[in-house]
Amino acid sequence: MSKVLVLPGDGIGPEIVNEAVKVLNVATEKFGLNIELDEALVGGAAVDAEGDPLPEGTLAKARAADAILFGSIGGPKWDAIERDKRPERGLLRLRSSLGLFANLRPAILFPQLADASSLKPEVVSGLDILIVRELTGGIYFGQPRGIKEENGERVGFNTYVYSESEMRRIAKVAFELAMKRDKRVLSVDKANVLEVTELWKEVVTEEAKNYPEIELSHMYVDNAAMQLVRAPKQFDVIVTGNLFGDILSDEAAMLTGSIGMLPSASLDENRKGLYEPCHGSAPDIAGQGIANPLATIMSLAMLLRYSLERGDVADAIEAAVESVLDKGLRTADIYTDGTRKVSTEEMGSAVAEAL
Amino acid sequence: MSKVLVLPGDGIGPEIVNEAVKVLNVATEKFGLNIELDEALVGGAAVDAEGDPLPEGTLAKARAADAILFGSIGGPKWDAIERDKRPERGLLRLRSSLGLFANLRPAILFPQLADASSLKPEVVSGLDILIVRELTGGIYFGQPRGIKEENGERVGFNTYVYSESEMRRIAKVAFELAMKRDKRVLSVDKANVLEVTELWKEVVTEEAKNYPEIELSHMYVDNAAMQLVRAPKQFDVIVTGNLFGDILSDEAAMLTGSIGMLPSASLDENRKGLYEPCHGSAPDIAGQGIANPLATIMSLAMLLRYSLERGDVADAIEAAVESVLDKGLRTADIYTDGTRKVSTEEMGSAVAEAL
Ligand SMILES: CC(C)[C@H](C(=O)O)[C@@H](O)C(=O)O
Ligand SMILES: CC(C)[C@H](C(=O)O)[C@@H](O)C(=O)O
Repeated sequence: MSKVLVLPGDGIGPEIVNEAVKVLNVATEKFGLNIELDEALVGGAAVDAEGDPLPEGTLAKARAADAILFGSIGGPKWDAIERDKRPERGLLRLRSSLGLFANLRPAILFPQLADASSLKPEVVSGLDILIVRELTGGIYFGQPRGIKEENGERVGFNTYVYSESEMRRIAKVAFELAMKRDKRVLSVDKANVLEVTELWKEVVTEEAKNYPEIELSHMYVDNAAMQLVRAPKQFDVIVTGNLFGDILSDEAAMLTGSIGMLPSASLDENRKGLYEPCHGSAPDIAGQGIANPLATIMSLAMLLRYSLERGDVADAIEAAVESVLDKGLRTADIYTDGTRKVSTEEMGSAVAEAL
Repeated sequence: MSKVLVLPGDGIGPEIVNEAVKVLNVATEKFGLNIELDEALVGGAAVDAEGDPLPEGTLAKARAADAILFGSIGGPKWDAIERDKRPERGLLRLRSSLGLFANLRPAILFPQLADASSLKPEVVSGLDILIVRELTGGIYFGQPRGIKEENGERVGFNTYVYSESEMRRIAKVAFELAMKRDKRVLSVDKANVLEVTELWKEVVTEEAKNYPEIELSHMYVDNAAMQLVRAPKQFDVIVTGNLFGDILSDEAAMLTGSIGMLPSASLDENRKGLYEPCHGSAPDIAGQGIANPLATIMSLAMLLRYSLERGDVADAIEAAVESVLDKGLRTADIYTDGTRKVSTEEMGSAVAEAL
């Protein structure tokens, strides 16, 4: 039996997670899966209920689970509260407490949605990049950090730090994943300015020696941000640190024009993982039933593939999503003339049915 | 009399700077400017000649100058030498020694080159963004930094630090510039994770109170990287720190598809400045006479406008560039069917003549 914890979170989180659970229930029946589902509060919802964005009970359930399906967190309601209680901190603590160091973010262009991109079709058609972002280290978690008084004024400071072993294990993940793809890995750094990324480049290069079939290249982060706009199809797997990965993976996702479609996985050393859509909690459209549940449904597919080792079920869910797109069903964010606009619930039901 | 120091640097630097100097000489005659030109070594060229990417003599001349016209630096030849002697360090030391804290990077789409963009025409036509990047602080210069041994492994670390006064003075520059434009400023941070940028957001917000006409907004850096791809025309002035500015300004430049066209200015408190093209030293095409000199010529225009307070001459140079583009002259990087391919020298001469 596998334990799956559902953390709907805030904003559109509950709505989209609902649809993914609907699909999971159908998959459970169809494929005879043995899954125990549980649910808990996280983010702003948990702050409201228990004064903490990651309550003890939620963390305990997360530790006990084999995989976590996560919606989204945050919203203007919690912007003004003290730093430690902000919804985002709950997610950061969850990633860190569970050791979810490997964040996989595919940027894939769905042929059915090619028009949605702001880039010319020839630049993005067939796009299929996998960004591997280190998720539990770097400047996100580095100490010391804070705001202090110095010479009569405030000074803000953070620390960007990586140890060799942290770098090595994320490089390994990137190389392993690339072996199942086009065997090309780009490592992104700012080695001409930052010592921490100078070491990053060195360690990744060393680790590559264990993967003689992999073609490894390096790029400065500013150049990578440019090349993603100029010619994104040159990339296969991109590996980088937490902050650069945050920036580049969002940029890459937007190249597809449909961030409402893109899933992500955050994995520990043992294939336990947290799965969430790439997009945020979209408080402006929450509760209206118009959010796109497909990124969350695709995240569920990743959950089945990576943590539950049911690639067959993942494939079936992904095929169901494709077939629904082929039929012309679209939520508002990906709607174009000549397609059929559907609600969050209609979209989820259509995928469940197609499955 | 105004002193202008020319630092050609490496790669295509000398070729493109030559053409800008050609244009400056014509401008000097036509407008009766009183300019004393000097030249010095910087970057790899200076390493080769004197073992230092920023020799004492060059720094002394730079201090004495009213403005500096800079080509480009770096190349594979100097990649393997020790950190302190790399060409880039010469540029970083120059920025820091002269207090050139305000880096202005326009991202403008030339209507004549609209096709060059990888984005759809309707997304970028008329694009006119000004990125204001802090250039002498942040993680580029923060201490402590380095690579140390800890628990039997190497650990790399850098420090991201800004004081209130550093933040305030760059915000001021952005607000002042926005007052002459569309009066909208976007400040980019990662305040949901990094304390230093939490303070940034606070200080920029405070400083905005002195500019009641300015419409200030805020965005996380990951979202800004996305929005630049999705709908770049929503922006007027973007202000951010050194590292985020490095990444976002290159991304924004590439939206235009013609980074060979984009100039930049790096200013101190007293309008002294260093002016350089946004593009790099392009060692792969150096010495072939095919590089695009227009970004350097446009940088010269910025030099005349900001440091020499000759906006009239700057306008004339910019108009000359436009007229040459209108005539269909193109260097290889911006060449398309139906235009006339010209060399670096032909392009420079054409602008000089048009002037
Ligand atoms: C919400 C925020 C803390 C988070 C991050 O920066 O990691 C988000 O942007 C993401 O990429 O998952
Ligand atoms: C050459 C390098 C140190 C420099 C920087 O990162 O500032 C360059 O990328 C730039 O943007 O001018």
